[in-house]
Amino acid sequence: MTQIVPQSGNSWLSREELDSARERLPILYIDAIPVRVDEMGTVTSVGLLLRVTGHGQISRALVSGRVLYHERIRSALIRHLEKDLGPLALPRLPANPAPFTVAEYFPTPGVTPFHDPRQHAVSLAFVVPVEGDCEPHQDALELTWFTPAEALDERLQGEMAGGQGTLLRQALAYCGF
Amino acid sequence: MTQIVPQSGNSWLSREELDSARERLPILYIDAIPVRVDEMGTVTSVGLLLRVTGHGQISRALVSGRVLYHERIRSALIRHLEKDLGPLALPRLPANPAPFTVAEYFPTPGVTPFHDPRQHAVSLAFVVPVEGDCEPHQDALELTWFTPAEALDERLQGEMAGGQGTLLRQALAYCGF
Amino acid sequence: MTQIVPQSGNSWLSREELDSARERLPILYIDAIPVRVDEMGTVTSVGLLLRVTGHGQISRALVSGRVLYHERIRSALIRHLEKDLGPLALPRLPANPAPFTVAEYFPTPGVTPFHDPRQHAVSLAFVVPVEGDCEPHQDALELTWFTPAEALDERLQGEMAGGQGTLLRQALAYCGF
Amino acid sequence: MTQIVPQSGNSWLSREELDSARERLPILYIDAIPVRVDEMGTVTSVGLLLRVTGHGQISRALVSGRVLYHERIRSALIRHLEKDLGPLALPRLPANPAPFTVAEYFPTPGVTPFHDPRQHAVSLAFVVPVEGDCEPHQDALELTWFTPAEALDERLQGEMAGGQGTLLRQALAYCGF
Repeated sequence: MTQIVPQSGNSWLSREELDSARERLPILYIDAIPVRVDEMGTVTSVGLLLRVTGHGQISRALVSGRVLYHERIRSALIRHLEKDLGPLALPRLPANPAPFTVAEYFPTPGVTPFHDPRQHAVSLAFVVPVEGDCEPHQDALELTWFTPAEALDERLQGEMAGGQGTLLRQALAYCGF
Repeated sequence: MTQIVPQSGNSWLSREELDSARERLPILYIDAIPVRVDEMGTVTSVGLLLRVTGHGQISRALVSGRVLYHERIRSALIRHLEKDLGPLALPRLPANPAPFTVAEYFPTPGVTPFHDPRQHAVSLAFVVPVEGDCEPHQDALELTWFTPAEALDERLQGEMAGGQGTLLRQALAYCGF
Repeated sequence: MTQIVPQSGNSWLSREELDSARERLPILYIDAIPVRVDEMGTVTSVGLLLRVTGHGQISRALVSGRVLYHERIRSALIRHLEKDLGPLALPRLPANPAPFTVAEYFPTPGVTPFHDPRQHAVSLAFVVPVEGDCEPHQDALELTWFTPAEALDERLQGEMAGGQGTLLRQALAYCGF
Repeated sequence: MTQIVPQSGNSWLSREELDSARERLPILYIDAIPVRVDEMGTVTSVGLLLRVTGHGQISRALVSGRVLYHERIRSALIRHLEKDLGPLALPRLPANPAPFTVAEYFPTPGVTPFHDPRQHAVSLAFVVPVEGDCEPHQDALELTWFTPAEALDERLQGEMAGGQGTLLRQALAYCGF
C-alpha cells in the first residue's frame, strides 16, 4: 500500500470551520494508553499524563487527539503519541487495526460513560507499548508511570476527566488486569 | 444511561455542508455484515445486497452508512440495518462495542484495501446476526443469502465495490471461516 | 461441518484418571457470563449464581465447567449454561469463536489473578446473552441479576472465589462498562 | 505476579501417559503466526516454516505446540517461538491475553476446518511480531517470509496441513489483509 501523508494547505479546516463541523458531525478521535511491557508482553506499568484542563484544573489524562482528513488511524496514533511523549518514545502499535473499545464522547452528559462538552467525538481506543524514552511534551506537565494495581485504584481513575478513568479501567481489563 | 435520539432540525447538515465536510474531515461510517446463525451461534449464511451503483453498475454490497451527529454507534447500526433489510429483520447487535475491524476508505485508491471516491470514510465493521424476516428496501434490488463457503469465493468477493469483498472475507475469518 | 456429539463410554475419564490428568496437564475450561441485553444489544443485567463451595462457604459464581474430549467449545458453553440456568435459558452464543479473555487458573496462588487449588485450568471466557427463562439448577442455590453498576461494585466482586470477581470486571469492561 | 516455571520431574507426562491422555481429554495448544511489522505496526511479511511431516511429506507450517502443566500461555508461546525460530528471534507478544481465534483440531476430519489425527487439540492462536534474527531450528528445514499478498494465495495455503492454511488466512484478516 502507498505511504501517504495528510494533505496540507486548503483542504484542512480553519478554526471556525472546525467549530462548525463540531456542531454537525461526529468527530473521529483516537485514545492511546501507553504501557511498558516485560519480555513476555505482560503490562508492567501504565503511563498517565498530567494536564491543565481548559478550566484551569489539573487532571490525569490519556494520549488523545483528532484524526485528520486523509490520515491513517495508525499515523494519527503515532503523531499524538510523539506529540505527548516525545519523538523517542518508540511506540509499538498492535498488528491488528481494531481498537479494543470505542469511546463515544457525547456533548450531553450521561448518554455514555464518556463526555466532551465541545463536541460529539467517537474515539478508537488502543493500548500501545512504548519501548523508548518518554518525556511529557506540549501541554502535558508530567508523565507518571503506575503499576496495573495502582492504575486500578478508583481514586486515581476519579482524577481523570470526561470518563477517561473508565477507559483506563477497560484498557487494564483488556490486558488481563 | 439516558436513551437519546439524534438531534433534528438545524444541527444537521445540508447537502452543501456535507459535501464541504467530506473534503475536510474523515466521515464516520458503520459497515454491517448481516448473518444467520444456528442454535449454537455458528454462522450458517451471510446476506449480501444487490445495488445499482452511482455509475449504473450492479454490485453486491454490505449494509453501510453514515453515523449522524449525536447518534450512538448502536443506533446507527440498527437504523441502517432496518433501512436496508426492513423493520422486521430483528438485528441482534453484539454486547461489546468494539468493531471486529476498522475499514479506512480513502478517496485515493491504493492507500488501503478500501476506496471511496467521494470521501475519506472511516468505517467500524460489525457482524450482526438477524433473526427476523429480511426484505431488501430502499435502493437495494435484492438480498441474497450465501453459505460461508460460497461467500469465501473470490469471484463473489470480486463483484463487490470499494474493497467490500475484502471486508466480507475479514468478517468470515472473524467468524471462524 | 458435521454435527458431532462427545464420544460416550470408555473414551471418557474415570474419576481416578481425571484426578491423575489434573496433576499432569492443563485442563480446558469455559467460563460464561450470562447477560440480559436490550433491543440495542446493550447489557442491562448480569446473572450470577449463588453456590455452596467445597468448603461449605456460600459464594457468587459464574457459569463454569470443563470441555470434554471431542466436544466443541460451543457445545460445552451450551451444555454448562443449560446445566446451570435450565433448558429454557436460550443462550445466544457470539458468532466469533474467540473468547474475550483467557483465565489461567493456577493451583499455586499468585501466579495469575485466577486460582484453582484442584488443578491448572485454562478457561476461555465468553459473555453470553440469554433470552429465555433462567432458573438455577444443579448445585446452584440461586440466580441473581445485577445491573452493570451493581456488578462493578468491588464488594460484590469480593464475594466471588478463585478470581472470578476479576473475570466479572473484565467482562463488564469488554461490554463497555 | 510471581514468576514461575513449569514443574519438572514426575509431574510431567511420560510418552505413554500423554498418549493415553490424548484419547481422553482435549489437549491445550498454541499456534503462533510470526510476522515482521514496519514502524507503524503494519504487517510487512509472514513467516512460514517448512517441515517434514510424520508421513515424510514436506509441508508449510505455523509455529505450534503444546502448553505444559503449570506453564503460562505466554511462556508456551515464547518457548515454541524460540524452539522453531531460534533464541534471537525477539518475539513481541501482544499485551492482551486473548487469542485472535481458537482452532479446534479434531481427530475426526470435517468437524471443524482443523484436523489432527493424533488428538483433539484446542489451540489458542496469536499473531506475534518478531524483531530479531530468525533461523529455523529443530525439525524445521527452512523459514520463509512471504508478503501478505503472497500469503493470501490459496495455493500457498493449500500447502499447509491440518487446516493451518485457514488459520493463516484468518490471521491475515485479523491484521487488516
